[in-house]
Amino acid sequence: MQKVSLAEKLSLFQDYWSPKIVGALNGQHVKLAKLKGEFVWHHHAEEDELFLVLKGTLNLEFRDRTEVLQEGEFIIVPKGVEHRPVAPEEVSVLLFEPASTLNTGNTENDFTKTDLDQL
Amino acid sequence: MQKVSLAEKLSLFQDYWSPKIVGALNGQHVKLAKLKGEFVWHHHAEEDELFLVLKGTLNLEFRDRTEVLQEGEFIIVPKGVEHRPVAPEEVSVLLFEPASTLNTGNTENDFTKTDLDQL
Repeated sequence: MQKVSLAEKLSLFQDYWSPKIVGALNGQHVKLAKLKGEFVWHHHAEEDELFLVLKGTLNLEFRDRTEVLQEGEFIIVPKGVEHRPVAPEEVSVLLFEPASTLNTGNTENDFTKTDLDQL
Repeated sequence: MQKVSLAEKLSLFQDYWSPKIVGALNGQHVKLAKLKGEFVWHHHAEEDELFLVLKGTLNLEFRDRTEVLQEGEFIIVPKGVEHRPVAPEEVSVLLFEPASTLNTGNTENDFTKTDLDQL
């Protein structure tokens, strides 16, 4: 049991769209990711997913609208809801989601990451 | 599904040791709380608990040591581990924990809060 500094963990990686596990509790993972550019449309059949912006601006696109998240803002995407993260500039996010969650949800493509690093 | 501003939610209350629910996902709650002074020693038999400091300094006491958490630092307290939050000055924290979690864990006293407000 050790405390974790979000800033320190964020300083340890620079690759985009590659979530890192920084904590685990109650079957859930706390992840950090840096995002830049456009991700793929996807949904998670069984998992709700929380995005908290730590730095920068995240456009979270839904089929009917876009939510623009600034630092200190979060949104919970319920399971089954299609979404696409878009980051015009680099953004750092914290994710809170079940350990079973795959970053590209129901899709598999070049963005798909399995075997996530644990920092 | 709406985005949530941590700062805006924190501006809505001032009472200490009274967690407010600001999000729910996968059977877990996201809570915000303001703390000042000394809490009670307790543990959670079944729930791991994450404390993320948003503002201020939190001393999280364990039986064998104290972890001092600054803004942007978190710790996960595994189930069964006795702990006592102490805040010499006001501190704002975000909590991630199962919806079943009682703030005073295995104890019941004046600090115990049931029926938490949802902001």
